[in-house]
Amino acid sequence: MAEDRLSLVFGALADPIRRAILIRLTEGEATVAELAAPFDVSQPAISKHLRVLEHAGLVSRSRRATARLSRLEAEPLREVTTWLARYQRFWDESHERLDELLAALQARQDDDARHGHG
Amino acid sequence: MAEDRLSLVFGALADPIRRAILIRLTEGEATVAELAAPFDVSQPAISKHLRVLEHAGLVSRSRRATARLSRLEAEPLREVTTWLARYQRFWDESHERLDELLAALQARQDDDARHGHG
Repeated sequence: MAEDRLSLVFGALADPIRRAILIRLTEGEATVAELAAPFDVSQPAISKHLRVLEHAGLVSRSRRATARLSRLEAEPLREVTTWLARYQRFWDESHERLDELLAALQARQDDDARHGHG
Repeated sequence: MAEDRLSLVFGALADPIRRAILIRLTEGEATVAELAAPFDVSQPAISKHLRVLEHAGLVSRSRRATARLSRLEAEPLREVTTWLARYQRFWDESHERLDELLAALQARQDDDARHGHG
């Protein structure tokens, strides 16, 4: 698996439980037990997901008394949003190019028809 | 690996070569050889990346004469952008909540100081 930051963040987002954990953390810090509650998965499985999120920089963890709390770090999401926004622009441009291409092909077809080419 | 559409798209984006392939395809259709050219990887490796992109709905493939062409399908990118945009809103809200929490804690601290609590 690629280890650059964007790849780590996209990879961390490539799981519905990890995305649900991030959304839960927008409401505030939570323990592993709290994060596991809505899902039919074990706390060790949630801990594994948290390590993936932590490795991608999307979650930080701290200890408060006996509880280990997870906290959202949203900055990496800005980075992937920025990447996608730039990409969206390219995509819009490629659609314009497609329209130009179709117009050019149509013009050539009309031209061929006038000059009797096959 | 999760097989829901969002997870497949995020997973497909979790690789720098696959992201570079998508950006190249914004310029138009391309053969495997053309897509492999800028990278120090084999054509079979590029083909494998293309299958991941195709499985996520980000690329479609067609045959023209002897060449197999890959083409960008950008609709799935809209879906992940929409998800992130919604998420961004949650994140902004959680920051506002944090500000409120800090203000509340500060008020309580001032109150405790006035009433001589520890």
